[in-house]
Amino acid sequence: MTSGTPTTPCQQIVLVGLSGAGKSTVGAILARRLGWPLIDTDDLVAKRHGSTPAEIITSKGEPAFREIERAAVHEAAQQTPAVIATGGGAFQLPASRAALGERGLICYLDATPGEIARRLRAAPDASDRPLIAGDDPESRLQQLDAERRLAYSHADLWVPVQGMDPETAAARILHTWATEADRLRSLPLRLDRLGAARPSAVPEALVDTGQDRYPIWIGSGQLTRLPERLRMVGVTGRVFLISDTNVIEAHGMRIAQALDGAGIPGASYIVPAGEASKTLRVADELYRWLAEQRAERRDAILALGGGVIGDLAGYVAATYLRGMPLIQAPTSTLAMNDAAIGGKVAVDLPAGKNLVGAFHQPHAVIADTDTLRTFPRRSYTEGFGEVIKHALILDPPLLRDLERHAGSLAAGTPDPEVLASVFTRSARLKALVVSADPTERGLRAILNYGHTIAHGIEAAAGYGNDYLHGEAVAVGMMGAARIAVRLGLLDEEVLARQGDVLRAFGLPLSAPGVPANAILNAMRLDKKVVAGRLRFILLEDVGRPVVRDDVPEDLVAEVVRGLVASS
Amino acid sequence: MTSGTPTTPCQQIVLVGLSGAGKSTVGAILARRLGWPLIDTDDLVAKRHGSTPAEIITSKGEPAFREIERAAVHEAAQQTPAVIATGGGAFQLPASRAALGERGLICYLDATPGEIARRLRAAPDASDRPLIAGDDPESRLQQLDAERRLAYSHADLWVPVQGMDPETAAARILHTWATEADRLRSLPLRLDRLGAARPSAVPEALVDTGQDRYPIWIGSGQLTRLPERLRMVGVTGRVFLISDTNVIEAHGMRIAQALDGAGIPGASYIVPAGEASKTLRVADELYRWLAEQRAERRDAILALGGGVIGDLAGYVAATYLRGMPLIQAPTSTLAMNDAAIGGKVAVDLPAGKNLVGAFHQPHAVIADTDTLRTFPRRSYTEGFGEVIKHALILDPPLLRDLERHAGSLAAGTPDPEVLASVFTRSARLKALVVSADPTERGLRAILNYGHTIAHGIEAAAGYGNDYLHGEAVAVGMMGAARIAVRLGLLDEEVLARQGDVLRAFGLPLSAPGVPANAILNAMRLDKKVVAGRLRFILLEDVGRPVVRDDVPEDLVAEVVRGLVASS
Repeated sequence: MTSGTPTTPCQQIVLVGLSGAGKSTVGAILARRLGWPLIDTDDLVAKRHGSTPAEIITSKGEPAFREIERAAVHEAAQQTPAVIATGGGAFQLPASRAALGERGLICYLDATPGEIARRLRAAPDASDRPLIAGDDPESRLQQLDAERRLAYSHADLWVPVQGMDPETAAARILHTWATEADRLRSLPLRLDRLGAARPSAVPEALVDTGQDRYPIWIGSGQLTRLPERLRMVGVTGRVFLISDTNVIEAHGMRIAQALDGAGIPGASYIVPAGEASKTLRVADELYRWLAEQRAERRDAILALGGGVIGDLAGYVAATYLRGMPLIQAPTSTLAMNDAAIGGKVAVDLPAGKNLVGAFHQPHAVIADTDTLRTFPRRSYTEGFGEVIKHALILDPPLLRDLERHAGSLAAGTPDPEVLASVFTRSARLKALVVSADPTERGLRAILNYGHTIAHGIEAAAGYGNDYLHGEAVAVGMMGAARIAVRLGLLDEEVLARQGDVLRAFGLPLSAPGVPANAILNAMRLDKKVVAGRLRFILLEDVGRPVVRDDVPEDLVAEVVRGLVASS
Repeated sequence: MTSGTPTTPCQQIVLVGLSGAGKSTVGAILARRLGWPLIDTDDLVAKRHGSTPAEIITSKGEPAFREIERAAVHEAAQQTPAVIATGGGAFQLPASRAALGERGLICYLDATPGEIARRLRAAPDASDRPLIAGDDPESRLQQLDAERRLAYSHADLWVPVQGMDPETAAARILHTWATEADRLRSLPLRLDRLGAARPSAVPEALVDTGQDRYPIWIGSGQLTRLPERLRMVGVTGRVFLISDTNVIEAHGMRIAQALDGAGIPGASYIVPAGEASKTLRVADELYRWLAEQRAERRDAILALGGGVIGDLAGYVAATYLRGMPLIQAPTSTLAMNDAAIGGKVAVDLPAGKNLVGAFHQPHAVIADTDTLRTFPRRSYTEGFGEVIKHALILDPPLLRDLERHAGSLAAGTPDPEVLASVFTRSARLKALVVSADPTERGLRAILNYGHTIAHGIEAAAGYGNDYLHGEAVAVGMMGAARIAVRLGLLDEEVLARQGDVLRAFGLPLSAPGVPANAILNAMRLDKKVVAGRLRFILLEDVGRPVVRDDVPEDLVAEVVRGLVASS
């Protein structure tokens, strides 16, 4: 047995990210675990100059501070072994990035501005952060986040610290360091660095579960870059396109031409549009087709369509040959913001929706917003139910933007930049939560806000027919908010605000005429039942979700009856 | 954000295992990566006493050496941070185990005696290992392995180094250290330590993929301990038993009484015995039944039966509610030694066997050898096809034992200890390979020895009817061996020896009358096809498998025609 060790294993971990993302705390844990020194570049600045970064910025201005910081970063970058926690802006200078990348595994601690603002409110040293001082730290953080995101995308590793305790974040980093540091550092072109050469290739968001890691591209014209994107994520075999009758009519030719033009072989299978296709019977048809086509494990399945296609084709990809590579190409508002991200795939049973499924992360999500134009208005609008949900549970600034632009967004006439920004932020929220908890053992449950009642409504109304998923979620969120108000968790004002924004998008706030008992019965069969008790996600405020298993049954029944009462 | 770090994170990694398992090599890699010192207790002995362990054993005898070694172990155990590589026998003394467990994460490097012997032959310092000197190091290692296994089961972590390069083994250890060291060390009763109080609870083998970790219990009377075993692996909800008409007749009452007696609620569903039940249609029936039963994610599915039930019930467990806990209770030779271990679950399509499936590791495998008595002789015997396969690809001493005891084993009248020993060793080989490569990205492919042709035979003959799986594998191994001989890889003698042992177990060496073209066509549809090329596992010798994608098609056709020619 020969040793085969590389000459210099990586003995430096560098933490980058916005002020307040937890770099010092996580860095301290890493340093303790490894027995390595912790170097905080802000402390190093203070040591070398006798004044803190805050003092220097106040007295000499930010540009002077950046110059001083650069020297500290270069000094820190020489040390091994070491854990290095950088100041929030230290990674912006290309020279600093290069210095830190020379020996270090660069880890980007990623959280939403909302989460960071919440952390800062709870931290004693918030006054030491001059760049985010002021009345509206969330908006300031939002702006910093937008400015710095491109630089952070050069990190070796994204660590979604959203809702993660620092111990878990440290363990995630150590895991990657232990198993992949040398590989990640030796790649000539890393996933996160795709955009170093071409900004158009930088993904809008990234899922990194520690096991699986994939880009999410969102925007106009993405499908025309499909062959290039497929190559970027390592698809080298044939591509089996699964889509539905509506979608293929609008986009099939363009996709087929793009794939043909790039010399990518494959075949396609079209199922009838609608939830009725999300069954084991249709999955069986697809299996037989793949068997006829002699599909292999290195070939890929391309799911082009809305949530139904993503779930169905994703489930087939998860199970055929015990798993094939999957590319999600969502074409609806709902799928782009929710269903296509996170690896949940499933088919329905007569007894309930999504009862048979798997967790199967895609190799990439490619969301071309141009496809939205071809959808009927109601399908376009319903997806905003999930977007609003993301904002309600995780991102107050996004909620404000949705309120501000509700008119143009709901009418389908938004400024393209507004649409791209809203979708990117919504998809990123989903990606962050999924990255932290890919198999729904904890945090991910918050994404079920509104879903406990929504699934009951969908089942009771004959899902896919009377209520589209996003519409049912809107009604379900109103139910959950009423429960929260009744339990004394939530202010009436937030309930009213939630109702206003849903109404502004043309989403329903109630489900008149659906039988309450059928809803309640269906809810009891849901996957969210634990030990026979219904599980609810409730809000204490915008951005503050809690999980509750103890909502009294009679309160649930009363609220559901209220939702279905004809007004 | 508060720090919440534990007071003393684990900063000591201890490697134990047989001489030659790779402790020094892996230890050196760990020490380099972490920047910690490496303490080799054999070196420490030499430093303190001026003579090497080999010299001390030769001059003063093993007991005197053990006393000296004990002092060195206690000295090493005080050091942090440190990586400690122990001598092969250092972990046998309870006092040494206690000392090493105080600060260290104890990692057991596990490989078969065959693998270790191969490594030692390749290593320059083999002469320094007096305990395994002599003509037949493999048999000596087999004996040491049997003696020491109970002590090694006290480790915090099993690391299957079978076929793993040292870098990968080190990464696996670092991963666990990074993510789980404190949790593993703080458990009052660890999985591997289950037997500390009661030897009957020590599992015969363990799968540890780094993600999933579960015990394999094998032996007489295991099913009577079912409720206790379920509790040990954390099953707290209802138990849904899936079995077939034959098995339930023989064992249903006993199981039902055991579960009822322990107050474990649940229900059962019985499918017709035979491969014809391994379909999507029957899976659909099972889904509907689980939905009626309001099964939840915390409930468990108990698969009681042969390979068909394990695959079918396992696939349902993998997909219902996106995954439920699964207990494999194999009742056939084949399932105990092969199908129930490793998480491969599937159903068949008309186009081919196992084309739809998943990787879903069970929570436990509970193999009660008493159930074998109720099987018809042919079903009992066929499973030895997989046992012999494990011996051929991985374990020369096991092959010798199979040859020695073929008469009584094949007749179904073995000494119970011989049966338990053979099954335990075979299951352990499977567990080792699966642990190293749970999703068949590399090493695990060697388990497909004989399977390329076997799947073709099963499909062509109408699988489950004319050829049982183990019989088809026997024929397939003969085909693979002939290909290897024709390619100049394998000696004719090994081919003859393989034929002799298969024949001694009453297994077929050919498949007269099955249409060769049908076999060849079915082979081309198999999951083992890569880029249109058939993949073969071939032997260079007993215990030396290689993967080959370059077997000429006409040679394959010629060999297959030879296998089906009526003699």
